[in-house]
Amino acid sequence: MDAAPTFREVLEAAARIAPYVHRTPVVSSATLDRELGASVFFKCENLQKVGAFKARGATNAVMALGDEACARGVITHSSGNHGAALAFAAGQRGIRCTVVMQEGASPLKAAAIRGYGAEIVTCPVGGREQTTERLRAESGATLVHPFEHPHVIAGQGTAALELLEDVPDLDLVIAPIGGGGIMAGTCLSVAARRPEATLVGVEPLAADDAFRSLRDGIRYPGVPAPATRADGLLTGIGALPFAILQQHGVEVVCVGEPEMLEACRFHLLRMKLLVEPSSGVVLAALRTLGDRIRGRRVGAILTGGNTDLSWWSAAG
Amino acid sequence: MDAAPTFREVLEAAARIAPYVHRTPVVSSATLDRELGASVFFKCENLQKVGAFKARGATNAVMALGDEACARGVITHSSGNHGAALAFAAGQRGIRCTVVMQEGASPLKAAAIRGYGAEIVTCPVGGREQTTERLRAESGATLVHPFEHPHVIAGQGTAALELLEDVPDLDLVIAPIGGGGIMAGTCLSVAARRPEATLVGVEPLAADDAFRSLRDGIRYPGVPAPATRADGLLTGIGALPFAILQQHGVEVVCVGEPEMLEACRFHLLRMKLLVEPSSGVVLAALRTLGDRIRGRRVGAILTGGNTDLSWWSAAG
Repeated sequence: MDAAPTFREVLEAAARIAPYVHRTPVVSSATLDRELGASVFFKCENLQKVGAFKARGATNAVMALGDEACARGVITHSSGNHGAALAFAAGQRGIRCTVVMQEGASPLKAAAIRGYGAEIVTCPVGGREQTTERLRAESGATLVHPFEHPHVIAGQGTAALELLEDVPDLDLVIAPIGGGGIMAGTCLSVAARRPEATLVGVEPLAADDAFRSLRDGIRYPGVPAPATRADGLLTGIGALPFAILQQHGVEVVCVGEPEMLEACRFHLLRMKLLVEPSSGVVLAALRTLGDRIRGRRVGAILTGGNTDLSWWSAAG
Repeated sequence: MDAAPTFREVLEAAARIAPYVHRTPVVSSATLDRELGASVFFKCENLQKVGAFKARGATNAVMALGDEACARGVITHSSGNHGAALAFAAGQRGIRCTVVMQEGASPLKAAAIRGYGAEIVTCPVGGREQTTERLRAESGATLVHPFEHPHVIAGQGTAALELLEDVPDLDLVIAPIGGGGIMAGTCLSVAARRPEATLVGVEPLAADDAFRSLRDGIRYPGVPAPATRADGLLTGIGALPFAILQQHGVEVVCVGEPEMLEACRFHLLRMKLLVEPSSGVVLAALRTLGDRIRGRRVGAILTGGNTDLSWWSAAG
């Protein structure tokens, strides 16, 4: 396992990625604040480049590479937002990017990744890691893992850093947990800039491995093929993020599917923001927290907006 | 007809409304910029209070009232965004607000307006103005017209003022035209702060009265019951906005329904922003302008996001 990044590396990431990514807006909803009896500040990473916070970590990792490594390119096996983010970052630096996708993966996602200029290599189902490792060994490309990577985590931490610059006096900061990259980065920034704030992570009930892992102090594997529409939160928590979340005393809240989709519906119709189900978990969790956030100032990270709205009819 | 407001009144409006409304973000899309060969900066009034720029003008009008007028309240006959905006503004000042709605008007809209604390008076179809005038005479309430009102127009002008503060070097500024309030306010700010910029207004083809009026130099009445989903642009251009648009040499572009809905779809899926069809006309017009915006810097006002997504299936 790599060493955990420090807050200093988050600050370095912020300087490194600033020319390439958006400083996203922070928005609030008076209607929601009345409902919750709290002041909630949403950091809109759905408005980030490639539609997700993943642009931060991937850009930090790519821009930190030496020239020699650049000549050999980068590779990853995430077909989701991280794959698109790495393709975007590699395009900004003008280097090769390979994304390994399983047969049968979404053609829409493949088209988006190709649109950013990456090469897609298809592999049999279940063979992503093996194929990636073979290609990496052959080409000498640098593997940029979606979350087991200090530069990636430091980059994700810049979202909470900006949020705390805009709203310094937060009592609680909340973000989703999939592999754990955004939550781990959030820990680093909050611990440095607002150590008195409570750190809360959120998972779908159907993919609650981080909840159980932090409760028991043992990192459990991800739930196999979890039944959730939060397609960005399917993966189990990584070793490096787990260590960081454990060290920072992160509490995990689990939320149901209807609550998650109702949150997406609220963001869309009332706040005019498209968020993916993986981001809807945050508002669903705030509603669960009830009395615990009343009268408090809450920072919440809306992690992404990449969705085809297929959940819309289910959210009515 | 009232005298046209000056840019000084826009500056006064900006100071007056700042405590009550959002300074909305300005966003761009690299994908769109590549498509258009231009740099487009969208001012997100869909993220404004009550979900539309109308909060600006209504707040300016209400906050400018003397104490005596306040005691008698305000009244309007707009059941759309202006009705909600006036209700919101009156609520902020703690004064009475009456909104006259026709029988059969959307119960959803009525609920929203009531939610902001206004009283709704129902009248027979076609009797809005008469009922409003009767109630105004009885109560002494101040009529805050949605666009034939210098304070309202000055308030709407603060959106372009902020846009030009964020992006000073625009070559062209574009906004929709219904009654003409946002376009008139935009004229005042652009003429004062960036006089070399071209001013373009947009209408749906089905409601093209401003286009014909500016072409012929005669103010035509609005198209009766126009067949467009742009429900914020149904009304004919007002006398005061018409005079301002004429004076500032505004050019009008008309766009079709499919192009408008495709623009809404792009804003939603690619930019993660919900905009109402009345705002989709702006991007549709930019696509129509083609060569005329290539290589140029464009400011575009996304006027609102209040829609139930009933157009979604038609936009596929």
